[in-house]
Amino acid sequence: MRSLVPILCGVLLALPSTALGQKDSGAEAAIHRGAAAWAAGWNSGDAGAVAALYAEDAVLMAPGMEPAQGRAAIMQALGGALKAAGGSQMKITPVEIMQGDGMAVEVGTFVDTAADGSHRDHGRYIAVWKNVGGTWMLYRDIWNSSMP
Amino acid sequence: MRSLVPILCGVLLALPSTALGQKDSGAEAAIHRGAAAWAAGWNSGDAGAVAALYAEDAVLMAPGMEPAQGRAAIMQALGGALKAAGGSQMKITPVEIMQGDGMAVEVGTFVDTAADGSHRDHGRYIAVWKNVGGTWMLYRDIWNSSMP
Repeated sequence: MRSLVPILCGVLLALPSTALGQKDSGAEAAIHRGAAAWAAGWNSGDAGAVAALYAEDAVLMAPGMEPAQGRAAIMQALGGALKAAGGSQMKITPVEIMQGDGMAVEVGTFVDTAADGSHRDHGRYIAVWKNVGGTWMLYRDIWNSSMP
Repeated sequence: MRSLVPILCGVLLALPSTALGQKDSGAEAAIHRGAAAWAAGWNSGDAGAVAALYAEDAVLMAPGMEPAQGRAAIMQALGGALKAAGGSQMKITPVEIMQGDGMAVEVGTFVDTAADGSHRDHGRYIAVWKNVGGTWMLYRDIWNSSMP
């Protein structure tokens, strides 16, 4: 039995990742949906819808302000940003997704177009997602502008 | 035996992470050393020393410029930033490190003090590290300023 156990465990370890909680084949799709939902929430001016994508203990690290810690603070920060944006339309493009154990890292780009159609901003972000009871939620989120 | 195997596998899965190749107990120490080396390189104006911490295929996403892709471009970007910084001194503090399979995510803060001792900037960063042949190297790196 001693000799069999490592083999059986080896087989177990080689199983598709969901079985071990190491990788979640649904994570990538969930994160793509999340990125689309982020943009949709922003584009309709709905800070609550965007904030709902963040875990309760998430931290939003937006440029030009101290970090917003927790979903309530994040919603407030997003509300202020939306007001300043004046109906801008955000396009978010996930470029790569790396998975860990119950976490995933998304690197992507954004383009923000003002309500009058002019180019408002563009840049990159890194978002760390974590699996909270089966739902992938934003946990750490940072971006910056590529514009001089 | 059928009933024992899951238990034994459960024990195996609960072993320190290095045994499973999922986490590297040396990663956290390596990343702390890396963060210190980043600051030391910056503070001595040595773009090459800082660039050497990045993987060959790393991407540096610094505010106000398009991403620098690859170590050579990163060194050039850092050289420009160092010139603009005029001998500033950077303090970098890793706040949390999350590990995946051959990758790790570091979230931290920085404070940048001008050569004349005045406060130049402070903010947050997310750095994705990857294990390249046993060495933890910066793979994706983004930061922004908390200052208005």
